[in-house]
Amino acid sequence: MKIAAFKLKVDSDRTRVGLVDIQKQRIQEYALQDNLSEVGVLTILKLQLADKPLPKIAATYDLTEIQLLAPIPRPRRNIFCVGKNYFEHAKEFGTSGYDSSTSKPGDEIPKHPIIFTKPPESVIGTGENIVIPQKVSKDIDYEVELTVIIGKGGKGITKADALKHVWAYTIINDVTARDWQQRHKQWFLGKSFDTFCPMGPWIVTRDELKDDDITVKCWVNGELRQSANSKDLIFDVPTLIETISSGITLYPGDIIATGTPAGVGLGFKPAKYLLAGDTVRLEVGGVGILENKLVNGI
Amino acid sequence: MKIAAFKLKVDSDRTRVGLVDIQKQRIQEYALQDNLSEVGVLTILKLQLADKPLPKIAATYDLTEIQLLAPIPRPRRNIFCVGKNYFEHAKEFGTSGYDSSTSKPGDEIPKHPIIFTKPPESVIGTGENIVIPQKVSKDIDYEVELTVIIGKGGKGITKADALKHVWAYTIINDVTARDWQQRHKQWFLGKSFDTFCPMGPWIVTRDELKDDDITVKCWVNGELRQSANSKDLIFDVPTLIETISSGITLYPGDIIATGTPAGVGLGFKPAKYLLAGDTVRLEVGGVGILENKLVNGI
Repeated sequence: MKIAAFKLKVDSDRTRVGLVDIQKQRIQEYALQDNLSEVGVLTILKLQLADKPLPKIAATYDLTEIQLLAPIPRPRRNIFCVGKNYFEHAKEFGTSGYDSSTSKPGDEIPKHPIIFTKPPESVIGTGENIVIPQKVSKDIDYEVELTVIIGKGGKGITKADALKHVWAYTIINDVTARDWQQRHKQWFLGKSFDTFCPMGPWIVTRDELKDDDITVKCWVNGELRQSANSKDLIFDVPTLIETISSGITLYPGDIIATGTPAGVGLGFKPAKYLLAGDTVRLEVGGVGILENKLVNGI
Repeated sequence: MKIAAFKLKVDSDRTRVGLVDIQKQRIQEYALQDNLSEVGVLTILKLQLADKPLPKIAATYDLTEIQLLAPIPRPRRNIFCVGKNYFEHAKEFGTSGYDSSTSKPGDEIPKHPIIFTKPPESVIGTGENIVIPQKVSKDIDYEVELTVIIGKGGKGITKADALKHVWAYTIINDVTARDWQQRHKQWFLGKSFDTFCPMGPWIVTRDELKDDDITVKCWVNGELRQSANSKDLIFDVPTLIETISSGITLYPGDIIATGTPAGVGLGFKPAKYLLAGDTVRLEVGGVGILENKLVNGI
């Protein structure tokens, strides 16, 4: 199932949730009364975890009639993010001079997962603008990431059981201010500016994908910059879930962005940072396309 | 005003909020109907920001009749935390071999604030147990921290205006698994295990303290380990608020733990890590005492 959070173009007040039909290019809205402006698609996860029937279909719209929102418009806590989780990207970033986690040459490939967070309020949906905070940073970079939505929560989840806790996948653009990421040592600040977490276009339940064979791509203004596959992850999804949940209880709806492959702007000489007017298009095979434009802001 | 979140010992179902009178050792419960199990004392901040009158007093209890809870039992997003923000601690940690942010000798003192986060669900109140996850880590350390609660939110807040955005102060014990902090490079994982964020005992509104002259102390089993003053901070509260809010919108109720002074367990040779049965007592002058015991857990 592809489930999206959306608003109607003619009535943008209410956040609705519906089932996406890609072939017919339409969305079937679930009959729901709750306020979904924060939880979005998680309202469906909650019903599934409680073994309750899914809501009836209230209405059907063409995708042209709606505005997609981030599938979880305001996550309940910060998003878990993974750093340097593809070999080629770990080399490209580790040798860039911007990587505060690499202290000596040869140390670029992490031996253990590197986890940081992005705040819930940095989330935007597909089609919304990524704002360049001109007075704060101009070294703005893109990072396409396969992203996991946790279904059943838990603690001490083993690798063997981990995939049973994955409800769905989506895409995150882990937008980064490289100068802040470097200068402040811990990556949080440079990763967390307002609008720096495009997410979407919707979630796809796990049954529709093959976990260890998912393609991950990024284009900037039509130029292919990143292209990889989830089988290339240094730490795969089960390892990430086992690591995080060993000390931290995971809850339904928790979000884990699994890291980005090589090809980020920083990796070019000179660096190709994003500029106002640029369009970043991310594609995760079997999920869909997340596309956002850059604009200048304060 | 000292405002606490609490439960009655005879009726532990409901989370209540009240005004603490230290001299009389009692608490005056505000007449409130809302569910306060997540927002706690922020229900009062919300009224103040809306220029509404405070609720009437519903009842008065002796402090012996109640169980204090963390003043904000479940923050709306991860807690902002500051690393290496006192000179002596920056040296003690930077030369310990455990500091992934120091790449060469002489580089121990940060030139810019180092910010990471702890998840909302790691929060516990005074008197609750810090659980040592024995199979995961035994290198558990304490860190007393003066902690800011944001009142009016904002973005691009200048140093000159910053203190107007401070609603109150409280105490956080930034409990840390040192081996995880080192091994995973980014500090988030080692800082975020369940129960690793004792907070309390209550909040004290800013008018009761002198921002740049607040004492910060920590005892382990009665032995004084940490003792400093907010005037010793490398990056003071206005600088922290200016830095964080330059790219990230701050919201009412956001929490900033300002960093810990020298004297953590890691600083001793050999390290004095916390063991089951130990009691960590934190005191911030003018705020109160936050005390938690260590127990063994999975």
